[in-house]
Amino acid sequence: MKILVMNGPNINFLGIREKGIYGEQNYEALVSMIQKKAEELGADVEVFQSNHEGAIIDKIQEAYYNDVDGIVINPGAFTHYSYAVRDALASVAAIPKIEVHISNVHTREEFRHTSVTVPVCNGQVVGLGLKGYLYAMEAVVDLAMKK
Amino acid sequence: MKILVMNGPNINFLGIREKGIYGEQNYEALVSMIQKKAEELGADVEVFQSNHEGAIIDKIQEAYYNDVDGIVINPGAFTHYSYAVRDALASVAAIPKIEVHISNVHTREEFRHTSVTVPVCNGQVVGLGLKGYLYAMEAVVDLAMKK
Amino acid sequence: MKILVMNGPNINFLGIREKGIYGEQNYEALVSMIQKKAEELGADVEVFQSNHEGAIIDKIQEAYYNDVDGIVINPGAFTHYSYAVRDALASVAAIPKIEVHISNVHTREEFRHTSVTVPVCNGQVVGLGLKGYLYAMEAVVDLAMKK
Amino acid sequence: MKILVMNGPNINFLGIREKGIYGEQNYEALVSMIQKKAEELGADVEVFQSNHEGAIIDKIQEAYYNDVDGIVINPGAFTHYSYAVRDALASVAAIPKIEVHISNVHTREEFRHTSVTVPVCNGQVVGLGLKGYLYAMEAVVDLAMKK
Amino acid sequence: MKILVMNGPNINFLGIREKGIYGEQNYEALVSMIQKKAEELGADVEVFQSNHEGAIIDKIQEAYYNDVDGIVINPGAFTHYSYAVRDALASVAAIPKIEVHISNVHTREEFRHTSVTVPVCNGQVVGLGLKGYLYAMEAVVDLAMKK
Amino acid sequence: MKILVMNGPNINFLGIREKGIYGEQNYEALVSMIQKKAEELGADVEVFQSNHEGAIIDKIQEAYYNDVDGIVINPGAFTHYSYAVRDALASVAAIPKIEVHISNVHTREEFRHTSVTVPVCNGQVVGLGLKGYLYAMEAVVDLAMKK
Amino acid sequence: MKILVMNGPNINFLGIREKGIYGEQNYEALVSMIQKKAEELGADVEVFQSNHEGAIIDKIQEAYYNDVDGIVINPGAFTHYSYAVRDALASVAAIPKIEVHISNVHTREEFRHTSVTVPVCNGQVVGLGLKGYLYAMEAVVDLAMKK
Amino acid sequence: MKILVMNGPNINFLGIREKGIYGEQNYEALVSMIQKKAEELGADVEVFQSNHEGAIIDKIQEAYYNDVDGIVINPGAFTHYSYAVRDALASVAAIPKIEVHISNVHTREEFRHTSVTVPVCNGQVVGLGLKGYLYAMEAVVDLAMKK
Amino acid sequence: MKILVMNGPNINFLGIREKGIYGEQNYEALVSMIQKKAEELGADVEVFQSNHEGAIIDKIQEAYYNDVDGIVINPGAFTHYSYAVRDALASVAAIPKIEVHISNVHTREEFRHTSVTVPVCNGQVVGLGLKGYLYAMEAVVDLAMKK
Amino acid sequence: MKILVMNGPNINFLGIREKGIYGEQNYEALVSMIQKKAEELGADVEVFQSNHEGAIIDKIQEAYYNDVDGIVINPGAFTHYSYAVRDALASVAAIPKIEVHISNVHTREEFRHTSVTVPVCNGQVVGLGLKGYLYAMEAVVDLAMKK
Amino acid sequence: MKILVMNGPNINFLGIREKGIYGEQNYEALVSMIQKKAEELGADVEVFQSNHEGAIIDKIQEAYYNDVDGIVINPGAFTHYSYAVRDALASVAAIPKIEVHISNVHTREEFRHTSVTVPVCNGQVVGLGLKGYLYAMEAVVDLAMKK
Amino acid sequence: MKILVMNGPNINFLGIREKGIYGEQNYEALVSMIQKKAEELGADVEVFQSNHEGAIIDKIQEAYYNDVDGIVINPGAFTHYSYAVRDALASVAAIPKIEVHISNVHTREEFRHTSVTVPVCNGQVVGLGLKGYLYAMEAVVDLAMKK
Repeated sequence: MKILVMNGPNINFLGIREKGIYGEQNYEALVSMIQKKAEELGADVEVFQSNHEGAIIDKIQEAYYNDVDGIVINPGAFTHYSYAVRDALASVAAIPKIEVHISNVHTREEFRHTSVTVPVCNGQVVGLGLKGYLYAMEAVVDLAMKK
Repeated sequence: MKILVMNGPNINFLGIREKGIYGEQNYEALVSMIQKKAEELGADVEVFQSNHEGAIIDKIQEAYYNDVDGIVINPGAFTHYSYAVRDALASVAAIPKIEVHISNVHTREEFRHTSVTVPVCNGQVVGLGLKGYLYAMEAVVDLAMKK
Repeated sequence: MKILVMNGPNINFLGIREKGIYGEQNYEALVSMIQKKAEELGADVEVFQSNHEGAIIDKIQEAYYNDVDGIVINPGAFTHYSYAVRDALASVAAIPKIEVHISNVHTREEFRHTSVTVPVCNGQVVGLGLKGYLYAMEAVVDLAMKK
Repeated sequence: MKILVMNGPNINFLGIREKGIYGEQNYEALVSMIQKKAEELGADVEVFQSNHEGAIIDKIQEAYYNDVDGIVINPGAFTHYSYAVRDALASVAAIPKIEVHISNVHTREEFRHTSVTVPVCNGQVVGLGLKGYLYAMEAVVDLAMKK
Repeated sequence: MKILVMNGPNINFLGIREKGIYGEQNYEALVSMIQKKAEELGADVEVFQSNHEGAIIDKIQEAYYNDVDGIVINPGAFTHYSYAVRDALASVAAIPKIEVHISNVHTREEFRHTSVTVPVCNGQVVGLGLKGYLYAMEAVVDLAMKK
Repeated sequence: MKILVMNGPNINFLGIREKGIYGEQNYEALVSMIQKKAEELGADVEVFQSNHEGAIIDKIQEAYYNDVDGIVINPGAFTHYSYAVRDALASVAAIPKIEVHISNVHTREEFRHTSVTVPVCNGQVVGLGLKGYLYAMEAVVDLAMKK
Repeated sequence: MKILVMNGPNINFLGIREKGIYGEQNYEALVSMIQKKAEELGADVEVFQSNHEGAIIDKIQEAYYNDVDGIVINPGAFTHYSYAVRDALASVAAIPKIEVHISNVHTREEFRHTSVTVPVCNGQVVGLGLKGYLYAMEAVVDLAMKK
Repeated sequence: MKILVMNGPNINFLGIREKGIYGEQNYEALVSMIQKKAEELGADVEVFQSNHEGAIIDKIQEAYYNDVDGIVINPGAFTHYSYAVRDALASVAAIPKIEVHISNVHTREEFRHTSVTVPVCNGQVVGLGLKGYLYAMEAVVDLAMKK
Repeated sequence: MKILVMNGPNINFLGIREKGIYGEQNYEALVSMIQKKAEELGADVEVFQSNHEGAIIDKIQEAYYNDVDGIVINPGAFTHYSYAVRDALASVAAIPKIEVHISNVHTREEFRHTSVTVPVCNGQVVGLGLKGYLYAMEAVVDLAMKK
Repeated sequence: MKILVMNGPNINFLGIREKGIYGEQNYEALVSMIQKKAEELGADVEVFQSNHEGAIIDKIQEAYYNDVDGIVINPGAFTHYSYAVRDALASVAAIPKIEVHISNVHTREEFRHTSVTVPVCNGQVVGLGLKGYLYAMEAVVDLAMKK
Repeated sequence: MKILVMNGPNINFLGIREKGIYGEQNYEALVSMIQKKAEELGADVEVFQSNHEGAIIDKIQEAYYNDVDGIVINPGAFTHYSYAVRDALASVAAIPKIEVHISNVHTREEFRHTSVTVPVCNGQVVGLGLKGYLYAMEAVVDLAMKK
Repeated sequence: MKILVMNGPNINFLGIREKGIYGEQNYEALVSMIQKKAEELGADVEVFQSNHEGAIIDKIQEAYYNDVDGIVINPGAFTHYSYAVRDALASVAAIPKIEVHISNVHTREEFRHTSVTVPVCNGQVVGLGLKGYLYAMEAVVDLAMKK
């Protein structure tokens, strides 16, 4: 079981960026939590972050060639406008995909209320903090096993 | 630890209603899963369903008086227009609240893309099937313990 | 052949409410017309009215369990916003359903021009007065016999 | 009692055009049903079809001079934009008029949800198939007799 | 002179709910103020609260049969979407009706800026706190006496 | 000096159609007024009316070949949606063109507030009754002489 | 206790202007009612009217320098677009301010449904006729005394 | 017969301002043309211009007291937002009123396509240059004589 | 192989109409180019133009009866509003259809950016001048041969 | 070199009005800063403030007659709706004009995000505090010298 | 003659991605078709694909320095939001540019109906499959030769 | 004092791209002006340009680690849609940031009127040409020194 956890722009600034919204824990803490969860789930995990939309698309395409079993993605701000990331996710139709947002985007600016990527994912976890990644990992493994 | 799991209109028709969307399992199966999860979490759970908006609001107010520690709510169609349910949820500000949708509402009709209730909840779990309730229960217990 | 004729909020105020729009005949007259028509059609009819959205949903669910053959519904003001009634109607997918409006809603306030319930019904009769119910009953029997 | 039944563009392609939506019966079958119904109602009926907006307006004006007692009209696609047909219908204010749509337009493309002609008709019958014409004929005779 | 003062959903949570917005006084204090004012005005008053839309409509219809002289109503969140409550208020056209909001709804969320019920009332009092009910009672008595 | 006065759909029903809006005078009276005004202006006038959009476009194209000096046009309902008439008027760029509306369209239905044809005319006369045609004729002669 | 009652454009035409909407009483009658109420409240009142937006802003600024205790304002048509008056009201943040409309603006033209000034006032009284000013005066005195 | 011709802001800059749009003739030329036309019509005319919205409203109110028989008004930019000028015009309901625009506003910026004042005037003359005032004067005299 | 090339309103004014947009070549030149291309493709071609929406619909229906193999259509202004032409094209579902626009409509007025007909065609060629017809002919032959 | 610095409504309340937004310095301080900057630039400056839209337009017209070389304008709230001020600025096309806002209007209420005046200015300085005027003065002198 | 054929994100997944929409042929097949066509046209072609918006812009700028004669571009999802790609295309104003879409974007999701890049191209070919590139190449060569 | 001046996509094509809008000076000239200004201000400056959104975000994050004192940014087309750049700017909350646009974006296409980045900057300089950068540099130094 291979899982890919992807993070879009500025997620690497966890613990630096707007702590009132995203919390005090930094990006390294997030990566550790994910790795520990992967072990519990008996899965291999790769954690990937980029501020580059193209790099995220390249990585999704690579997942296709590498037979990744499930994708957990927090597209960051790309959530709200990147139809290119959406198309990339849609193009790997057979891989289960779950979108994660750390904060409750629906209590923030208007533009954060719309996700152009969620319609091509299986589901979404919003506002549950860093733990949202862990729930999404469980769910994506669950979906992968049902195939 | 007391948890209240609330289901809005038509959720009791699980297994009858649009199985292609909501799956084959019926409402009783959902209730069992929730009760089993509560045991695992060492929590008391009440599962409540009503087709009546007023009954849902009454129940939320009752939760205030009964010192409920966390609410997991699938408001069903009320999600999209019931500002009265929203106000009720907002009025119990101190209780952690998580919204659940069984299906990925963002791939369905336009009106299902907007939730008037999620801005007064802590977070939302969308499209993860009946398991979404279980993730939400974990999360709500987690939030309750942090208080 | 079992038919259920449902009336939403304020329809029971026929003959009291805005007579210039809804006419002089009262609710009892409507019920009599419906019952007489049912006899002509050789069908059993139940006529139900409620001001409570939840009661209307409960009744639709009951129709499922009672093997009702067809539903004629004037959702009153629920037509314009009750996605919960819509979901209830959609959940009894196998039962033919026709929506009725006594007045020509399209010559009245803007909000009356939109029906959130008609997309899950088979058809709609608008502006033909109390007789609209009778046409709808004929049509619903017709649809039920085609199944 | 003189009734005019009017059909707008492409209605003559019944049985050819999108059978999944409009059914298998062809235009001649529709005309026969209408003529048979007129006999039952003891009325003279003219059935008119044109793909030309101007011809439809001319015909409505002719109805004024010929003392037609009632109009049943399926404006086809003109329903959604022909303010000229609307004005023609409005200009024969004294003649009862009912709009018919064979399919449930509210489950189809967005543009079909709006009728610019129904506000100047007495009522509307939607989604009841070819029988919708027959209900409308009954209703228009009824209205004509009340005058 | 019979006055009916109606309160919609969550108004009974005064003193519990968002005190920064609604103030510290509880629902019982409001009821007392209203009763004292009624005495000053030499009027009988019934104070009614419900979280159920249907119960509010039933009560408005009951007011018709009971010859109530004036209605003061704070529809709570129903203000913003309940066309059913609107229709009920419109159906008792002869009774003076005044809408009250405790807080200044125009400084709050966008959805609170629209009232679907005020167009069928005589007037509206907004943002004057609990005293708003008292001004509305004076005004409704005034209107009732002019009839 | 050759002037073409064009009238779109339903203008021939003057004196029949909605007299409260368009007045008591019939179409023949309008034609006489126009012809008398043409004599005063020393101009040849052709008055043309059609309910057919295509016939109006054909006529505008004919005006090009016949060296018409000015066009006065009341496009009737085509004003609000006929981009084809607009394109025809635009294609005879060298001929002065004035749009006329008998009634004050801005006090009527929303759809009458927009003209898709006026941006390709020189000007517009609105709400001045049948005399509006006469003012427009004066103005169009004036424009033609300036060329 | 110094109160300033301000009236915007055309309010001085009370008794002349649209009596069906604003009633038969003239502006002098309004001023008398206000002065009598001020006496009852033991307050000094200045009643000011202007058709000039700038004069209204100047007067609000003067109120700041004169230590006015409360402002009752009917901004007339400025209600719907004068962000300059809004800013002036906002700039005297410490003075309680209540907006008054004589008629029920919500039953009139669409543009009257929006107030750009009410978000910077404490509250609003709508549709209670000339008495609305008196309720507002009571309320503004009440607010001033709480400070 | 007393006519008032009113010009809103910046109209006094004719011949200075955007000559490509408004032409070469200056404001004095316009005034002369109007005065000459008034003589032809046997009417007294006052020509008034102001850049001050309040002054225009004051002048409209003065017209009421002076028994003016007709108003021709080019509200300039106030056309597009001054509900205060609209209310002033509406308040002198018995006086015929015609709106004039020198240029064809419908070929210019979007905001110029909407007039908030024309719905309370009898009609409108657009794009006929300075002569538009003269046509409007004829028309307003015509309307005044019909009363 | 039978091809029908259809041109909507005002296309016959090529070489007369707005040459800066549509070029200097006239309609006859276009017809010749099309005929020459048909010969190259070994196809029979009929070139049809009408300013009448109804005539275009009649022609599309005729194509059905004549077993036309492919349609190339430039609907002119009908592109932007004729749902009747759209329905006609949709009704001949089995015939390949390609829409052509001579100019780049997306650099022109807003209304030209929307095509109501393209969703029922196979494709569209925009802004490639008269040659666009030739590319569309090649493509339609290609599609017809694949059937 | 003559510069005119204009301030719209409520700018004279600097130091009084919303200090959190506009800062502590008062209007006199602003005037001093501007005069000192003018000296540095070797320019004559007039600083003008009015709460009256008409006075601002009069002043702009006066600038035309006085051969002013450049205008720096903070239109205050007129920024958002005064098409009359816009037209005045546009009418002095030859004079360089720069718009200034003290605060960052784009972080404030929605209505402050739109400027109807900036399209007829050369540029805009936003959110740089009182110094914004000084940068604008430099820039306007720069533009004036380039002419 | 140098032609640059550019493909945006996910186009390299042809034959993998949504075959029902894009067909069975893979990206290599497309490249071969383009190269063969270039030979026929006697042109040098470079085929470029990237998932990176910046790389596409860099390449367009490189085309400027390399004296490319024509660009054929399928911007993929960038079509719908990349104003940066649009600006890049606009900046090479002298190079003919044609936009290609393999599928008929107008029958798919709403967001695909808008192209932000086509207004700065010469034309567009939509829905003609992989052959669309070949038609566009012909057209771009044609345009390049006309310069 | 370390200043970072950032330029988004296509800014490097100054002097090549649309000279009528951006002027004749090339990118090197801009860089020189900035460097000279930095010397005057006694500051270190880095001038950075990229067509890659991700590179711009990386650079902003680098500025955080390098203790940059102020950022001047012209995001080019990213201004209008890059919520990712916005989030990056927001994440370096402590660094003063000013947005620059060379041309007056408010006189250009609709999409250029909205900036998604300015709400997280301190201010904005628009339409002042290349000098806008210099004013912004002064202002950002000023802000940095106030900290």
